[in-house]
Amino acid sequence: MKKVLIVISFCAIAFNLFSQETDKEQIKRIFDNELSQGRSYENLRSLCYDVGHRLSGSENAAKAVEWAKVVLERMNLDRVYLQEVMVPHWERGEKEQARIILSNGSEKELQVLALGGSVGTDKKGLTAEVIEVKSIEELTQLGKSRLKGKIVFFNRPMDATQISTFSAYGGCVDQRYGGAAAAIPYGAVGVIVRSMNLKLDNYPHTGSMKEYDEGQPQIPAAAISTNGAEELSQLLKHDPNLKLFLKMNCQTLPDVKSHNVIGEIKGSKYPDEVIVIGGHLDSWDVGHGAHDDGAGVIQSMEVLQLFKSLNIKPERTIRCVLFMNEENGGRGGEKYAEEAKKEKVKHIAAIESDRGAFTPRGFTIGGDENIERNSFNAVEKWRGLLEPYYLHMIEQGGKGGADVAKLNGQGTTLIGYIPDSQRYFDYHHTNADVFESINKRELELGAASIASLVYLISKYGLEEKIEREKLD
Amino acid sequence: MKKVLIVISFCAIAFNLFSQETDKEQIKRIFDNELSQGRSYENLRSLCYDVGHRLSGSENAAKAVEWAKVVLERMNLDRVYLQEVMVPHWERGEKEQARIILSNGSEKELQVLALGGSVGTDKKGLTAEVIEVKSIEELTQLGKSRLKGKIVFFNRPMDATQISTFSAYGGCVDQRYGGAAAAIPYGAVGVIVRSMNLKLDNYPHTGSMKEYDEGQPQIPAAAISTNGAEELSQLLKHDPNLKLFLKMNCQTLPDVKSHNVIGEIKGSKYPDEVIVIGGHLDSWDVGHGAHDDGAGVIQSMEVLQLFKSLNIKPERTIRCVLFMNEENGGRGGEKYAEEAKKEKVKHIAAIESDRGAFTPRGFTIGGDENIERNSFNAVEKWRGLLEPYYLHMIEQGGKGGADVAKLNGQGTTLIGYIPDSQRYFDYHHTNADVFESINKRELELGAASIASLVYLISKYGLEEKIEREKLD
Repeated sequence: MKKVLIVISFCAIAFNLFSQETDKEQIKRIFDNELSQGRSYENLRSLCYDVGHRLSGSENAAKAVEWAKVVLERMNLDRVYLQEVMVPHWERGEKEQARIILSNGSEKELQVLALGGSVGTDKKGLTAEVIEVKSIEELTQLGKSRLKGKIVFFNRPMDATQISTFSAYGGCVDQRYGGAAAAIPYGAVGVIVRSMNLKLDNYPHTGSMKEYDEGQPQIPAAAISTNGAEELSQLLKHDPNLKLFLKMNCQTLPDVKSHNVIGEIKGSKYPDEVIVIGGHLDSWDVGHGAHDDGAGVIQSMEVLQLFKSLNIKPERTIRCVLFMNEENGGRGGEKYAEEAKKEKVKHIAAIESDRGAFTPRGFTIGGDENIERNSFNAVEKWRGLLEPYYLHMIEQGGKGGADVAKLNGQGTTLIGYIPDSQRYFDYHHTNADVFESINKRELELGAASIASLVYLISKYGLEEKIEREKLD
Repeated sequence: MKKVLIVISFCAIAFNLFSQETDKEQIKRIFDNELSQGRSYENLRSLCYDVGHRLSGSENAAKAVEWAKVVLERMNLDRVYLQEVMVPHWERGEKEQARIILSNGSEKELQVLALGGSVGTDKKGLTAEVIEVKSIEELTQLGKSRLKGKIVFFNRPMDATQISTFSAYGGCVDQRYGGAAAAIPYGAVGVIVRSMNLKLDNYPHTGSMKEYDEGQPQIPAAAISTNGAEELSQLLKHDPNLKLFLKMNCQTLPDVKSHNVIGEIKGSKYPDEVIVIGGHLDSWDVGHGAHDDGAGVIQSMEVLQLFKSLNIKPERTIRCVLFMNEENGGRGGEKYAEEAKKEKVKHIAAIESDRGAFTPRGFTIGGDENIERNSFNAVEKWRGLLEPYYLHMIEQGGKGGADVAKLNGQGTTLIGYIPDSQRYFDYHHTNADVFESINKRELELGAASIASLVYLISKYGLEEKIEREKLD
């Protein structure tokens, strides 16, 4: 018996060494193909220029659905389909106007960008004094007496000492998301927010805000650039009674029918085990939505294309899901998770790419507690295969991203693709997020990184360790 | 005796844990200071705009020496001085002209940039047929009969499948460096080279070329952009007899006196043990030399500034060396090494930053074989302190960089700072290498990364492991 075990162990080791070698070669083929003949960059150019930005409910969003379906159909996949979902429809309307009016009567233009979901001002616009705060908590201290009739100016900058800019974003975004809702009960008449940007520049960054509470008044909310915020703050020091004129005519219209776009390659051995890879097809209505999340869309589609081009027949099903409405509602992600639950789809992993087209750093591995630890260990074992491609950060935790997180609780491993974060907020939700801000190689390296991980999961699953432990 | 040893061991472990904690805090202070109050970005702006590009021997190079001296003097260091060195003086002269002349007589402008060290054409310019090759080796096959009287067009692209773009560069740069020298014996009358760039764009990239062999004719050599190379190659397929007109009036003038700029903080405990940190002050005569190597210059100076600002008194001497003439001669590096040898300076480490202001990846640790292994082990031990700052790549090998490599053989550990390489060759030696291509945070992260490693070396040296092994 002992002899047999030794022979089995030896075979297992030999097989493991052999398969790591094969995997190494296969991963090299994936990177080689993508870096020399990849389609990502031209596909992204097409999404940016033939479609453009694509806010949920807009004509462009419908065009993006068609565009994505056609691109996927061209790949000769096993299945391409749309999944219907009702999405919010908010429109910015005419370009916003804003002016700082100093006490001496002189005026200064200010670039603003309405936050998504904001109401407009009335047709003549709104003029009010401005009060600067650094946090939502500060509103309580100031109270109604100081805030009533004012435009509240949230001006807490992102913390530059955070190494991950997403941590810095996380420490600030409450002002944008919850600022208006928090200011309304104090009688504020409007809100402006310093943009979520570490760089000092002239781009206002839009983004979502919490829905207005029912029965409360609704006030307009807009972002100003970091330079604009610095300037306004300085002016307020010398002229605390200056006023801000704000004119916005954005509005929320009835929900619109839209779609998630889905394409898949059936698994040859375990067709019922599904690996999702996705990004969000919608974007804000500024720039091209190139990094956010054109990159994730293109990379997710490219994973399938790489399997096709290299004639890799995955043992498990690989499904690319392009989610609609991540930016202002998350309805596409919700819908997908809802249907998956109904149909009892066995998602062994769901990977999201929604952090821009920057040079790869690694992956976060999360999900339910027991799944997270096990899957993290499984991916950790592949470190030697991933590190040559600069995928050093294999980190336990997170829920993959806003869309795949909706699958949490369904036994799915939730994985986030992590590119370098340093430049992301230079572009996020602005007119600077255009195709020209994309570096071809960085985009491609992301696609090949994700495809390599998908390749390993499709071959080995994520439960190998449990099985092996049972055997030991 | 055993008891004593146990107590000592325990103390050693406790001390080690305590000092790692202290080091962690100190490194955090370095990063916090740099990311929130760093001077790197504004200093680089000043170098780019108040000085500009600064080719060895030029007026701007002399201005850069003055500029750097003043900036270092403002830091209140223990010593700031210049080290005299004679450098080559090559001038581009008037803007180059080039045209493709098709057989049907129609003409097409071509952007070219003379290679550093090239001779000019005669005043009327040079017109000749073009022969495309992919390598220097191909010249042997073609022979004199095919090459005589022609302009040789070296058009082997960088290999996109290399993950490190420096590897791709290494596989191509022989065409630029040695192309002209190799073509001369075959009677070629000029050389043009596809730019060392993975991206398809319109920027020609200059760079150094081998000196002409004595007694041989000297022919002009220039770079064309990757788009230009693609176009010319296409045109040659249809019209192999097309001609190229080239006019350049660059020239080499007599050597000029210049300087390395040096500033240092004396070590409190081991003043004779010197840690060098450096970049090169000269640049090519295009753009601002912002990445190459404005970034390395600024980061090296900032290391000293961080020690001063945080009032860290290093136990070993920290010396910032801004080398002159890395780009077209390496005379500054040579001079520094020569003097160091003469004066028997004990350089325990020399760190170079000359790979652009991109997000940090890590360090290479090299030097003489025995030193390399030992120092690598020492730095490896600090991995836990460095990885939180994305410094995952601690790699054994290399000689640090072109300037510090000159210290090889003097018992010095040669360290290269490694930022991400993906975008470097988008800018390298072109008019695109301007201040605006710099991301502030990436520049700062580099400065803080280097300062952290310098801090650890200045505190522990690099020989701890040997000592500990002796003790064991």
